[in-house]
Amino acid sequence: MQLDTQKAHRAFGGTQGYYRHQSAVTGTPMDFALYTPDPSRHPGPWPVVWFLSGLTCTPDNFVVKAGSQRVAAELGLCVVAPDTSPRGVDLDGDSEHYWFGKSAAYYLDASAEPWKKHYRMFSYLSQELPQVVEANFSVDLERQAISGHSMGGHGALLMALKHPGRFKRVSALAPISSFTRCPWGETAVERFFAGDLVAAEAYDPVRLLEAGAGLPRTLIDQGGSDQFLTEQLRTPLLAAALESRGVKHNLRMQPGYDHSYFFVASFCEEHLRFLAEALE
Amino acid sequence: MQLDTQKAHRAFGGTQGYYRHQSAVTGTPMDFALYTPDPSRHPGPWPVVWFLSGLTCTPDNFVVKAGSQRVAAELGLCVVAPDTSPRGVDLDGDSEHYWFGKSAAYYLDASAEPWKKHYRMFSYLSQELPQVVEANFSVDLERQAISGHSMGGHGALLMALKHPGRFKRVSALAPISSFTRCPWGETAVERFFAGDLVAAEAYDPVRLLEAGAGLPRTLIDQGGSDQFLTEQLRTPLLAAALESRGVKHNLRMQPGYDHSYFFVASFCEEHLRFLAEALE
Repeated sequence: MQLDTQKAHRAFGGTQGYYRHQSAVTGTPMDFALYTPDPSRHPGPWPVVWFLSGLTCTPDNFVVKAGSQRVAAELGLCVVAPDTSPRGVDLDGDSEHYWFGKSAAYYLDASAEPWKKHYRMFSYLSQELPQVVEANFSVDLERQAISGHSMGGHGALLMALKHPGRFKRVSALAPISSFTRCPWGETAVERFFAGDLVAAEAYDPVRLLEAGAGLPRTLIDQGGSDQFLTEQLRTPLLAAALESRGVKHNLRMQPGYDHSYFFVASFCEEHLRFLAEALE
Repeated sequence: MQLDTQKAHRAFGGTQGYYRHQSAVTGTPMDFALYTPDPSRHPGPWPVVWFLSGLTCTPDNFVVKAGSQRVAAELGLCVVAPDTSPRGVDLDGDSEHYWFGKSAAYYLDASAEPWKKHYRMFSYLSQELPQVVEANFSVDLERQAISGHSMGGHGALLMALKHPGRFKRVSALAPISSFTRCPWGETAVERFFAGDLVAAEAYDPVRLLEAGAGLPRTLIDQGGSDQFLTEQLRTPLLAAALESRGVKHNLRMQPGYDHSYFFVASFCEEHLRFLAEALE
């Protein structure tokens, strides 16, 4: 589990690091960012919050823009921001649209050529990255929660739905509710799954809920002025599925907020506190 | 005072805007960012905090990375982040070094050709930008304070030294103490002033203090692991000048912190609270 430290910055008494390792799952180098609190204030092992970012993002967006370190420092959380796709491999069509391919891998395992060799973010996040983090940092993986924004909100819900009991709580900011039924996700269905809708639906949070999967207590915030709300995010589908499955949840519409990281920053603290409550 | 809104995002209940106007002083378009709190929570007119950024920056760095909006929203501050140089004019040598020219105008008025026509950030910040802000937003310029990072820390001290009584308090994060005596500033002395050291020293905070100028109560934080501390920032010169002039100040060394915006973000809240105390 060789890990290269790319950068490390003191932040709010802890350390905001950027790390790289060679992934056996994706067959590429993978980057992630990870915050550790001040060990003299919060001796480890620390509980872990995963934050998955959206389309076009790298680990840097959440780290730089969301203001998470202040809250993680106070609460004693290790916060991990994975990348949004494999890097360093070029496949035909992987940069044609901002909503597909590089920075847009939807946290799933592709089943179709040529994608299935490298685009295995679901397996990477499920198994390999937690092992890398556990081997290199003082973390307690019995105390985990997960959150994300946009495509990363989809990813957070997906990870929690597919790993019952692993995450104590889940949250999402402006999540893509059902990628198999929105224009952004059409390209992913066509290419990652060669158009096999049934295979794709195995990674669709709303379809998983409809098929009987469950979630821990869930907080969702959605900007009321989000330019992607109606066509892409399809929040009502998620609201109905959560309701129908009896998931304990709070889905809040936030008037005036758009899809940007200013929205994420505005509610990041509440989400971290919500997640941390179950990680004591 | 025509002002174009480039972008506006809801953030922490207020509005983070990006604006552009045509400057008569610099003869170029000028950008700035400005946060206004939620008027239903804090009815205007609002006190104003100016935050000046460092080398390589645009108004975006502070706005995106420092986490200022949360604190400004709570305290009811209008926070203005000006640009770091004129834009849209190309002069020979303005992009040769990151420490001179575009994004590196040192908040002064150049006296030498070809710079003196456009590189007039001191006059721009002293007169024109406050007028533009006052004409377009509900602000109270009787209640102003100023802060900045690196070259912007130099700028904040400079502005306060040259405008006695205008700013109730001043603060700086890792300021360039004496640009006429550091390698970064050598290019500015050579080009903006054709090597006239005396002319340049009229914009050098330490030299102004030595010449008898005063400051309101001042807070300065400096990272102890800042890679620029010894050669460029020359904090001991500033410490001695503040001491010698009897300025009420608190200059704190912060062990482990570097020169990045993670340092700025870590102490931004304290600086805003320190400034706001005098703006009630």
